[in-house]
Amino acid sequence: MALLFGARTVVPIDLKKKPWEQEHPLHNQWHPDIPAVAEVKVGEVFRVEMVDFTGGGIKHDSSAEDIKHADLSVVHYLSGPIKVSDVDGVRAKPGDLLSVEICNLGPLPGDEWGYTATFDRENGGGFLTDHFPSATKAIWYFEGIYAYSTHIPGVRFPGLTHPGIIGTAPSKELLDIWNERESEVQENGLKSLKLCEVLHSRPLANLPSPKGCLLGKIEKGTPEWERIAKEAARTIPGRENGGNCYIKNLSKGSKIYLPVFVEGANLSTGDMHFSQGDGEVSFCGAIEMSGFLELKCDIIRGGMKEYLTPMGPTPLHVNPIFEIGPIEPRFSEWLVFEGISVDESGRQHYLDASVAYKRAVLNAIDYLSRFGYSKEQVYLLLSCCPCEGRISGIVDSPNAVATLAIPTAIFDQDIRPKSRRIPVGPRLVRKQDVLKCTYDGNLPITRNPAAST
Amino acid sequence: MALLFGARTVVPIDLKKKPWEQEHPLHNQWHPDIPAVAEVKVGEVFRVEMVDFTGGGIKHDSSAEDIKHADLSVVHYLSGPIKVSDVDGVRAKPGDLLSVEICNLGPLPGDEWGYTATFDRENGGGFLTDHFPSATKAIWYFEGIYAYSTHIPGVRFPGLTHPGIIGTAPSKELLDIWNERESEVQENGLKSLKLCEVLHSRPLANLPSPKGCLLGKIEKGTPEWERIAKEAARTIPGRENGGNCYIKNLSKGSKIYLPVFVEGANLSTGDMHFSQGDGEVSFCGAIEMSGFLELKCDIIRGGMKEYLTPMGPTPLHVNPIFEIGPIEPRFSEWLVFEGISVDESGRQHYLDASVAYKRAVLNAIDYLSRFGYSKEQVYLLLSCCPCEGRISGIVDSPNAVATLAIPTAIFDQDIRPKSRRIPVGPRLVRKQDVLKCTYDGNLPITRNPAAST
Amino acid sequence: MALLFGARTVVPIDLKKKPWEQEHPLHNQWHPDIPAVAEVKVGEVFRVEMVDFTGGGIKHDSSAEDIKHADLSVVHYLSGPIKVSDVDGVRAKPGDLLSVEICNLGPLPGDEWGYTATFDRENGGGFLTDHFPSATKAIWYFEGIYAYSTHIPGVRFPGLTHPGIIGTAPSKELLDIWNERESEVQENGLKSLKLCEVLHSRPLANLPSPKGCLLGKIEKGTPEWERIAKEAARTIPGRENGGNCYIKNLSKGSKIYLPVFVEGANLSTGDMHFSQGDGEVSFCGAIEMSGFLELKCDIIRGGMKEYLTPMGPTPLHVNPIFEIGPIEPRFSEWLVFEGISVDESGRQHYLDASVAYKRAVLNAIDYLSRFGYSKEQVYLLLSCCPCEGRISGIVDSPNAVATLAIPTAIFDQDIRPKSRRIPVGPRLVRKQDVLKCTYDGNLPITRNPAAST
Amino acid sequence: MALLFGARTVVPIDLKKKPWEQEHPLHNQWHPDIPAVAEVKVGEVFRVEMVDFTGGGIKHDSSAEDIKHADLSVVHYLSGPIKVSDVDGVRAKPGDLLSVEICNLGPLPGDEWGYTATFDRENGGGFLTDHFPSATKAIWYFEGIYAYSTHIPGVRFPGLTHPGIIGTAPSKELLDIWNERESEVQENGLKSLKLCEVLHSRPLANLPSPKGCLLGKIEKGTPEWERIAKEAARTIPGRENGGNCYIKNLSKGSKIYLPVFVEGANLSTGDMHFSQGDGEVSFCGAIEMSGFLELKCDIIRGGMKEYLTPMGPTPLHVNPIFEIGPIEPRFSEWLVFEGISVDESGRQHYLDASVAYKRAVLNAIDYLSRFGYSKEQVYLLLSCCPCEGRISGIVDSPNAVATLAIPTAIFDQDIRPKSRRIPVGPRLVRKQDVLKCTYDGNLPITRNPAAST
Repeated sequence: MALLFGARTVVPIDLKKKPWEQEHPLHNQWHPDIPAVAEVKVGEVFRVEMVDFTGGGIKHDSSAEDIKHADLSVVHYLSGPIKVSDVDGVRAKPGDLLSVEICNLGPLPGDEWGYTATFDRENGGGFLTDHFPSATKAIWYFEGIYAYSTHIPGVRFPGLTHPGIIGTAPSKELLDIWNERESEVQENGLKSLKLCEVLHSRPLANLPSPKGCLLGKIEKGTPEWERIAKEAARTIPGRENGGNCYIKNLSKGSKIYLPVFVEGANLSTGDMHFSQGDGEVSFCGAIEMSGFLELKCDIIRGGMKEYLTPMGPTPLHVNPIFEIGPIEPRFSEWLVFEGISVDESGRQHYLDASVAYKRAVLNAIDYLSRFGYSKEQVYLLLSCCPCEGRISGIVDSPNAVATLAIPTAIFDQDIRPKSRRIPVGPRLVRKQDVLKCTYDGNLPITRNPAAST
Repeated sequence: MALLFGARTVVPIDLKKKPWEQEHPLHNQWHPDIPAVAEVKVGEVFRVEMVDFTGGGIKHDSSAEDIKHADLSVVHYLSGPIKVSDVDGVRAKPGDLLSVEICNLGPLPGDEWGYTATFDRENGGGFLTDHFPSATKAIWYFEGIYAYSTHIPGVRFPGLTHPGIIGTAPSKELLDIWNERESEVQENGLKSLKLCEVLHSRPLANLPSPKGCLLGKIEKGTPEWERIAKEAARTIPGRENGGNCYIKNLSKGSKIYLPVFVEGANLSTGDMHFSQGDGEVSFCGAIEMSGFLELKCDIIRGGMKEYLTPMGPTPLHVNPIFEIGPIEPRFSEWLVFEGISVDESGRQHYLDASVAYKRAVLNAIDYLSRFGYSKEQVYLLLSCCPCEGRISGIVDSPNAVATLAIPTAIFDQDIRPKSRRIPVGPRLVRKQDVLKCTYDGNLPITRNPAAST
Repeated sequence: MALLFGARTVVPIDLKKKPWEQEHPLHNQWHPDIPAVAEVKVGEVFRVEMVDFTGGGIKHDSSAEDIKHADLSVVHYLSGPIKVSDVDGVRAKPGDLLSVEICNLGPLPGDEWGYTATFDRENGGGFLTDHFPSATKAIWYFEGIYAYSTHIPGVRFPGLTHPGIIGTAPSKELLDIWNERESEVQENGLKSLKLCEVLHSRPLANLPSPKGCLLGKIEKGTPEWERIAKEAARTIPGRENGGNCYIKNLSKGSKIYLPVFVEGANLSTGDMHFSQGDGEVSFCGAIEMSGFLELKCDIIRGGMKEYLTPMGPTPLHVNPIFEIGPIEPRFSEWLVFEGISVDESGRQHYLDASVAYKRAVLNAIDYLSRFGYSKEQVYLLLSCCPCEGRISGIVDSPNAVATLAIPTAIFDQDIRPKSRRIPVGPRLVRKQDVLKCTYDGNLPITRNPAAST
Repeated sequence: MALLFGARTVVPIDLKKKPWEQEHPLHNQWHPDIPAVAEVKVGEVFRVEMVDFTGGGIKHDSSAEDIKHADLSVVHYLSGPIKVSDVDGVRAKPGDLLSVEICNLGPLPGDEWGYTATFDRENGGGFLTDHFPSATKAIWYFEGIYAYSTHIPGVRFPGLTHPGIIGTAPSKELLDIWNERESEVQENGLKSLKLCEVLHSRPLANLPSPKGCLLGKIEKGTPEWERIAKEAARTIPGRENGGNCYIKNLSKGSKIYLPVFVEGANLSTGDMHFSQGDGEVSFCGAIEMSGFLELKCDIIRGGMKEYLTPMGPTPLHVNPIFEIGPIEPRFSEWLVFEGISVDESGRQHYLDASVAYKRAVLNAIDYLSRFGYSKEQVYLLLSCCPCEGRISGIVDSPNAVATLAIPTAIFDQDIRPKSRRIPVGPRLVRKQDVLKCTYDGNLPITRNPAAST
């Protein structure tokens, strides 16, 4: 066997090492000046390995303490940047479109497990942190395509595995736009944004800060490190460069068309998810894991102008385009929960899809808790199972209608409403629950007034 | 053939008559005191026919003038109410759950056409009315499962036909809740709701008003008519009783679990859609048509308490549950557009899925307009074709990520980005456009600053 | 409503009349000289109604006597022939390809029921007639997309409705080829064909015979009638002209490319099936019904030469091509039964897919009978439910491998093998069975030797 | 990382070694006395690696000579046998059912390529060897889920990867049944089996022979080796123990219920296929490769009697049952070719699905060759791409109807019939063809008489 087929590994990961000890040191910020660690050609299939988004910060143990005290300043650890050039060796240029096909992906051998969690309300929270302020954690084990959890028994489902984060490096100009608009939110949001009264996770934005910064090959403490660390954007939100797209169907065979802002494109990726529900509602909410990607790139010269839409003050205000891959789990039956934009206090909001989706998720949690689950179990489950979150209606004032569709086949019992009470499927007689910490803060918990009647 | 199989027609429609002239007069308001026009038993398959949501107000002609001057006070004309009783003749009671299976549905024979439209910005507008303030209209023709439009050439797709509106009558108590919370929005919304700065369709809510009221068997002008007309809720938004759910997958074989608030449930339905995209963005936005439903009901006694979640101040603050049917068009390839919660001016919003979805739709419109379409054509198309609107990420502050997925097979050309420019499929050399009126108001049009550079 | 949309009805059916009393009299033979009853243009959507394949011979009653004594000489009653011309009025010509799109189809209003049956072994039999020689019958009722049977309780499934027969008229030359080759089988088959020892349904072929002939507008008893009746081909088997294709997926949105042998194509269709399994194993084996088709034609000039393959002694030895429609029931779980080409006596056959499929079906019948069904119930069910019959392996001498895949969701209980014996789903405690006659003949019944040990 | 997750490797493969040099030596025969090489417990996920079915006999080179001279006496090399015991350590027993879940599978790292071939007519041939007597070969490369071939350009498709062979060891009694019935075919088949006149691949059966035998841990030349080699069954056909099932959908997430004939079950598996079409028509016909399986077993005690059907002279005459996995490539459009049981000479056969399928495949080959392919390219393609072979009708004497459905999305051009001749997709201007040898024998080639007119 002289020949070697398959993908060339351009970013290997040694799971026994820390993110900053890797052969190709990782980075956790977006900045044009983070040097590339590898270079690939269009048409070449290459392999990128990655740590989980916390770089091993969350352990396979029987406590949620690590979640409660997680240092969110260090996430997400990304592999890259990787420069891309065409068959003649000419690199991608600003204004090009970088097409990235996900040929394959999966967990790293020997590390076939993951976790889903909610952060403490004082440390990031989640979509429903006003209802569920405690840090919680559930461990998942992978059996090939399937995941199961001892903390959430009675469910087993095939994953639609995908990278949570894939993006190109921003230019300095784009970085400045990000920092400016996010500063504005952080400074003025609480008093000007009505949605903050319903969505309680904080902070409103995560501005650049040297704390926790990892900048790849740039040595910590150098003046360049100091400069970049002060400017570099946090990886939490998705933005014009792709990044944290959190598109649950971005699995095997998908193709992503990313705008190029710097020479070579500087592609980075990380935060692999074994599975995720639309919305990723618990925040640390997919089945988080380490993993590998096998990618194949193409460059569409001048593609930003030809295919992308600048929508905003500058030509940089674009968004990537995606093609969904041909392989996904086949579910035939879905139970759908609806929410309208009326919040838990009964207050009417105007066409607000976020409020409507919050209510749809709350409805689903309450419903499923009637089948033997704790609400925390369902919250984590709806965050990581292959459920679909839809904007069903966005024009019928004053109510936006959002829906959450759950595939019934992931449960080992029939979860549909029934007029006849014949037992169908194993009864859930289970002691297990998610791992859970106390919530020690004093922010108010949102109660469901009707539940107490 | 002495035997007669199939569904018993309980609400017939004569398309040559007006909504108020029908054998079973229609209604266009939600109120507990609108008398039932029919009664059915559980297990029985019955047929309900319906006019289009405007009751014939929009014509099959070559002008959008009827849309521009549409009287929105009269919509939606509903068929019903229908009382439901069990096999022993005992009616559904408040607190029960009414299960409604959609066994079949379709257009009325001889009336196999529909329309999609945007209202004038001064008369209801649409999701993107600040970009597209003019009234527009496109006519669709049905060839069995397929629809095509002479106004939007180059697309043809199978419909996922569904009733836009299906719901039970509210109790007086629930009606009061609705009217109170929606009054509050209408009175104080503009100054308190941030989203109004981005979503410009008006009014914020549609409060009860005798204008245009049709109350079924209640004779106009009687004291009872006056009383009900002042209290009855408009049918525009979806609410606790179902109503305008606008769930595009609610087609053949679906099942809806509706809460029962009044004796007999008083089921009403209307506003048939040949096809609709998630969000129904152009507002008059599905392929609107007349049609029929074949339904089968079951009563789950005490089901509201057993299966629904009161989420809010009272046990009435619930939402229906849905099961999606087993039959839908099979699409294998999807092109996905993303939006983040940054508006067209570049301003950052906090986890706002409505803003993110607006941007995703704008991105898709701009993209598709490069393939030979006018932007108005794409706006209407994305409102009525089987596209999916997803809440992909709702936790990564400050950006919500919403996505719009479009099945590529509905186009007669390959609409994917390509690095090689080989023509694939018929070139679009078309004079046709949607029917369009002038916008005569003086509200500002939102411009895309980057487009002008 | 001056306008009339939808399909023009070119062949109406009055269910109160006999096949020969219809406005456009039906025919039950293939012959070039049967006159057309209608003419359509390409691009036009037209409606063809049809009786069930026996023309009302099988009744909605509680006996299988009508099946036992069915006159098979009269089947199948077809609607047509219909001539097709292009937009300039020029008819399809021999050598063209006729593209027929099935825009829509369904049962006739008021006649929403069907039946599945096996004929008596002395009168046609079925695929397993040596095991099940008696005439049996099950009645199905349609609830929109769903069918259920009181004779086979515990199953309910959406139909993939399709025309059993659709084809063009043969030329005289092609007719002669058919009659010659089928005579040869009938005369010499029993002694020369090994498969006759395993497949016991008889006769081997159905040659032209005036008995039962219905020839449309040709008046019975005239010399022309006598001539045609002696030459015309029976409609039982599928042949070069399409005809009895029995492709279960040929439903809404499908397209059929039929060769044209006579001027105008002379399209005929009949034998509507609400649902059918691959193979249609019980012979009278789909859910047989009356119904309507909405069709749209196109002519591909010279298409036979361009697209079809003559495979045999003449250019007429071709087969149609099909495109499957985009709408079909979505099933996610399938249980698969396998058969190899070893017959019930243990004898080895050589790569014989028919023998292998017989064994796969026998395996499935025996398996499902363990869940509370009689074997006759399962035999009828597998003939008409949406199961898939596959030729999985056809090269591994001496065994062909055929498989039968059954969607598990059609049952109201979990039919999968289980190591834990927890009841899942209603137990089948049912007295009902299929309607059944005695078998009065004396042909031997094939026994399963192992079952008696 | 003290913990190790994932599957325990019980049968490793070193690709640099020969099948008989492996740490756990392989075997290529079915016999109860081949010793187990590993033992697993129910519930445990374990990994089995395997060579390609020829054990490296077919090379990644630019010639088909290795195919022409392939030694078919040595195939298929299997990994195992593996004994299975329950949680208490009690082994599976004869009469039990062994449930095997395929949790995962794929190629071996660094060996991501495969081949599809037809054997020379004098050395095994294929389904159409009378038309295509030459040895041919095409190499496929894997890019994650996708395969492409330089020898068959213009197609690329996702694989539905599966093990060609998975089965349990037969008991001596079952082995004797096999050898007896297959001897009978080999001795008397040519004169008694009509199908041999249409299907020309030879020999009719492959009886036990010491030539090429590999018997795992049994040392060659010992008396025991001699005894077993004379009795052991060849692995070519599928039989009662599963074995060469060749079910193309048996991919990730599938479950197989295998009968147990010997203590411990003695599970063996091999012959991995990256992808295969129903029928595997070219014989060496899947995309053949080395690979790994991750499996999880369960034992259903007494399950043979409870779930399997003895159909034949003894209780051993059973077949396995399969559950299809939830993940498969999503194709929305299929082009379907039909065949009836009339052979290439125009002769009528009686309900013969093998003859009908041969004609369907010939039809498809001819059709696709009009789009720029050689017939040999299409023959290999239809053998390995995810096409479906169906038994559509098996009761309408005298014609069986078989269909071959091809997903159109695997081609880079539109392969549907068209009435308008607008180019859609890249034109196929390609010099490449499959690798091909001469056919030096003198058996007659079947000609298509109509093609020469």
